[in-house]
Amino acid sequence: MSTSSIESPSAVATSEFDRDTAVTLRESGVYDAELSAGWTIIAAVNGGYLLALLGRALGDHLPHPDPFTISAHYLTPSVPGPAVIRTETVRTGRTLSTGTASLFQYAEDGTELERIRVLASYGDLDTLTDDVRTTATPPAIPPAGQCFSAADNPDPRIPGSSAIVDRLDLRLDPACVGWAVGAPSGKGEMRAWFDLADGRAHDPLSLLLAVDALPPTSFELGLKGWTPTVELTTHVRRRPAPGPLRVSITTRNLAGGFLEEDAEVWDSADRLVAQSRQLARAPRD
Amino acid sequence: MSTSSIESPSAVATSEFDRDTAVTLRESGVYDAELSAGWTIIAAVNGGYLLALLGRALGDHLPHPDPFTISAHYLTPSVPGPAVIRTETVRTGRTLSTGTASLFQYAEDGTELERIRVLASYGDLDTLTDDVRTTATPPAIPPAGQCFSAADNPDPRIPGSSAIVDRLDLRLDPACVGWAVGAPSGKGEMRAWFDLADGRAHDPLSLLLAVDALPPTSFELGLKGWTPTVELTTHVRRRPAPGPLRVSITTRNLAGGFLEEDAEVWDSADRLVAQSRQLARAPRD
Repeated sequence: MSTSSIESPSAVATSEFDRDTAVTLRESGVYDAELSAGWTIIAAVNGGYLLALLGRALGDHLPHPDPFTISAHYLTPSVPGPAVIRTETVRTGRTLSTGTASLFQYAEDGTELERIRVLASYGDLDTLTDDVRTTATPPAIPPAGQCFSAADNPDPRIPGSSAIVDRLDLRLDPACVGWAVGAPSGKGEMRAWFDLADGRAHDPLSLLLAVDALPPTSFELGLKGWTPTVELTTHVRRRPAPGPLRVSITTRNLAGGFLEEDAEVWDSADRLVAQSRQLARAPRD
Repeated sequence: MSTSSIESPSAVATSEFDRDTAVTLRESGVYDAELSAGWTIIAAVNGGYLLALLGRALGDHLPHPDPFTISAHYLTPSVPGPAVIRTETVRTGRTLSTGTASLFQYAEDGTELERIRVLASYGDLDTLTDDVRTTATPPAIPPAGQCFSAADNPDPRIPGSSAIVDRLDLRLDPACVGWAVGAPSGKGEMRAWFDLADGRAHDPLSLLLAVDALPPTSFELGLKGWTPTVELTTHVRRRPAPGPLRVSITTRNLAGGFLEEDAEVWDSADRLVAQSRQLARAPRD
């Protein structure tokens, strides 16, 4: 594809998210990128931010613009700094195209280290029919003014020390923040209002960020350790309406040292705009 | 890897499923296979059967034996007949290895046509810890004797004309078979007891079959057409205990011409052994 769908410098300047997920075409299918330190949790680069970056490159390379279903396997921990994304077209169809993308970083000797491998099918959300027979219902989250933001967090270690907190306008449901005061609910649930701090409007790429940007459900299960993602698959089902998103994450099967996290993302028009599931390693404590 | 993990001829002879998912190493990473007409629904080769075949090849190629999370994108319709599976190792880790697999068939001029692309991370289920903090509960399905089998089906067109029916011992929950008598429940739910007709014991490969072997939930939503899978991701969470499986499938978001199907597979010990989600095209009627 041409470079036309890559954000122009002027557009990039308007949003932290677009600036930090910008990719530069090096040669056909190969994109240079810079992983920003602005989207880290403690020292780790957020998996949703990385997915959005890969999603942008693949949307440029494939003939269809929007990720309909995108699966990412996280291989090694990404770090802030330069990266290269190599994309490949698997099949081009009339309504869907399938492709792969790999994000690499560089070892000290310059060799490439693969961080993430993605397999995805892209389409055009604007061509979808208007039929809706959704039986799922939006999560019941109190008004944003009654929810907890990072500024209210009594435990500054998590997530207050994380750069990503400043990039997001996250309002956590009070029913899901017991972990922050040492009283986890015991339920594998996390819910929040979700926006970008600089007010950037939502699109399919910010949905890829939204599905992996809340504190892990394991916090409310009383486990405070790290829950590294093994694999994350997201279905983008609709272009989000203007306004804040609501994100609901549920874990129902913490077993054998692994857990799943199911995310739903709802837009301001009460439409289920994205569904995701990830497999993650459970914290050891 | 060596060919040692491929079923020997004598073992293959004991089970239709093992015989029809057998793969033969042609050269490193390349496996020949024969797609059996015995696992078709009308004319289409079942997606779960195909996934098991790819899963077997990848389990042979990678250093770890069991699919922990496996994503398949279905590109073009497979047909009974010869196929070749090409596998590639993405990364080898201590507890998990990641690889890709592609299933190709042949055009009349001999060129290869890609049918399915898979990206998966494999581990060893026998190394998992015994901790279980599952909040999910097994589906409430009446005893198998009170459920409907293919022999009870008053509408022989679906799925009676499908070869796969003879390979499975499927007992559908009476609450989910209204579609067969023209009275769908209107709920996006399908539940069944699941076994192989020849009594083959369950393992991770038969779990890959189980997640995509029930009638589609759209039947109970009053839509009788075809629901081709775009993408199917399965997490295998535990080696199944001996005995029949219970499979529960739910659709909560039929919208925009697509739907998701979430499957849970429970074993006889009431353990959630697999979770899957697929994105499929909705029938047009």
